[in-house]
Amino acid sequence: MSQLTIALDAMGGDSGAEMVVEGTAIATKRITDANFLVFGDQGVLDPLIAAHGGLSDRVEIRHTDLEITAEDKPSNAVRRGQKSSMGLAVAAVRDGEAQVAVSAGNTGALMALSKVLLRTLPGIDRPALATLIPTRGRDTVMLDLGANVEAGVENLVQFAVMGAAFARTVLGLERPTVGLLNVGVEELKGHGTVKATGQLLRDTTLPLEFSGFIEGDGISAGVVDVLVTDGFTGNIAIKTAEGTAKLISAMLADAFQAGFISRIGYFLANPGLNALRSHLDPNSHNGAVFLGLNGLVVKSHGNANPKGFATAIGVAERMARANLCRLISDDLTNFGHHDQLEQKMVGVE
Amino acid sequence: MSQLTIALDAMGGDSGAEMVVEGTAIATKRITDANFLVFGDQGVLDPLIAAHGGLSDRVEIRHTDLEITAEDKPSNAVRRGQKSSMGLAVAAVRDGEAQVAVSAGNTGALMALSKVLLRTLPGIDRPALATLIPTRGRDTVMLDLGANVEAGVENLVQFAVMGAAFARTVLGLERPTVGLLNVGVEELKGHGTVKATGQLLRDTTLPLEFSGFIEGDGISAGVVDVLVTDGFTGNIAIKTAEGTAKLISAMLADAFQAGFISRIGYFLANPGLNALRSHLDPNSHNGAVFLGLNGLVVKSHGNANPKGFATAIGVAERMARANLCRLISDDLTNFGHHDQLEQKMVGVE
Repeated sequence: MSQLTIALDAMGGDSGAEMVVEGTAIATKRITDANFLVFGDQGVLDPLIAAHGGLSDRVEIRHTDLEITAEDKPSNAVRRGQKSSMGLAVAAVRDGEAQVAVSAGNTGALMALSKVLLRTLPGIDRPALATLIPTRGRDTVMLDLGANVEAGVENLVQFAVMGAAFARTVLGLERPTVGLLNVGVEELKGHGTVKATGQLLRDTTLPLEFSGFIEGDGISAGVVDVLVTDGFTGNIAIKTAEGTAKLISAMLADAFQAGFISRIGYFLANPGLNALRSHLDPNSHNGAVFLGLNGLVVKSHGNANPKGFATAIGVAERMARANLCRLISDDLTNFGHHDQLEQKMVGVE
Repeated sequence: MSQLTIALDAMGGDSGAEMVVEGTAIATKRITDANFLVFGDQGVLDPLIAAHGGLSDRVEIRHTDLEITAEDKPSNAVRRGQKSSMGLAVAAVRDGEAQVAVSAGNTGALMALSKVLLRTLPGIDRPALATLIPTRGRDTVMLDLGANVEAGVENLVQFAVMGAAFARTVLGLERPTVGLLNVGVEELKGHGTVKATGQLLRDTTLPLEFSGFIEGDGISAGVVDVLVTDGFTGNIAIKTAEGTAKLISAMLADAFQAGFISRIGYFLANPGLNALRSHLDPNSHNGAVFLGLNGLVVKSHGNANPKGFATAIGVAERMARANLCRLISDDLTNFGHHDQLEQKMVGVE
């Protein structure tokens, strides 16, 4: 396999360059055969990288003063941010210098820059943000998590195809099951867009097994391999799950500190609690992927810690090695779904 | 205070009449000064009620053979379900025989029957389903949880006013804080409807304190007293939270059964875990209220157990005693918001 290069936006995220460099240092220990192009302020990055012995051999700094902030509108990012650390990291993928880019910066800006610099695959109108959701069994691929706040029938069908390709690659499933998030499982439930999408997925031959509508409690239950929704609903659902997990973690900590005996109980139960602790730690599942572009871009949580950023780099590495973009593109071509869908779509929307 | 009468749909819910009667028996021990009108199949109900000593003095059975099933469409419920146990329970509220109705049946059917039989309050176009969400601090009122799968700007503003009235009544707050669920907190985030609603709530004088946009993780964090969203998003968010809590409960149970030492740990930590266990038990927070109607209707979870159904009866009792409908109606009139909004609304949608 040829050498892998990963482009990093060093200035994105709530804690900036220090978190990114620490995370990269953790990732280089796990991933021994990849190099990193690190985009950001050289004056800031040099001492941070020097502090990690051996890290300077694995990274190449590309200097830029410009950075995208949390407040930058997507349109501003496109107009004025192409020479920012985020824009240059994505451009490195476009130019073939890197196989994937990772950023913990502003989601809307990253989406807009990625769309302009990489362009969407043939047959895809809008990219989607996908991630793996931990369940009790196999992980579930969920998309869109907020790349688009609105999605029509055709977008949702494209998300289903891309999500299935993602599941084939990452979960190794030949014919993944795909569900559509809705307020009930019966065919008559939901608004017009979700009902029409369900109808189309039932009627169309695609490289996936359509399982129908799934309710919100199906996300954690892992009842399907791929769960499709619009970016508004998906973003709120995933953040609701995170908030619930955070509240329960806090209540669990309270419970174990309720007194001396409880603390001993905690100490004794501690080994068994590790799986739960890992499940509840958002840094264990960090890294969402923009699907549907001519190139791979991974979004880290803005408030990830170094361990979390290293997790996102791990996701980027797996996707790049699996050549995910090519697989999605092949799926779209092989199954000629686009023409077929275009015909079916007449009169639906 | 005059005698309270609560109408019950005895045939709704996944486990039917037995669960309802058991739940009523629990509720009558807590609520000693209310009577119950129980609508359902007398042949089924008689022996169930006879099995609870003293219960027959507190309940009056009103026989009907007809029942609404989970598969009934809302339109069918309205056309053919008015003499069903659900329809008759709601009609008892309309006719002043009861002050509130409780059903664990089909949500869409209950909504449709309630709207037709009770009609909406002046100034309210669509009712909304509201519940109290447990957080680490004070409970949060959240609506709509699925009464409407779509909501326009005017509906969302009406939900905000009704939610605030609910918070004033149930949480005893003079000027509740109200947030609008969105994919980000900045004013430019979200789709057109949520942005226009945010603008209108910022600009309009209403009996509430608008706190702006709230993300999904704000639901459990309890950052506002009232959280407003459309019924599609609200339904998926609340079920996602339930699913997450269920998964974590299962993982916690696994952790404590990981071995003999873990079990001792569990035993020792047990008293401290009670608050968490109660938080994780959906039957501790059962009972959502339809707001915006000329009459009170409470929806219990379809899969509630008797304890959960008793919790929903408790919610019904509190709302009826507080005269919630009157309070919401007064709020709408006093603040003359409707005329003011109608003027502002021109050109928004």
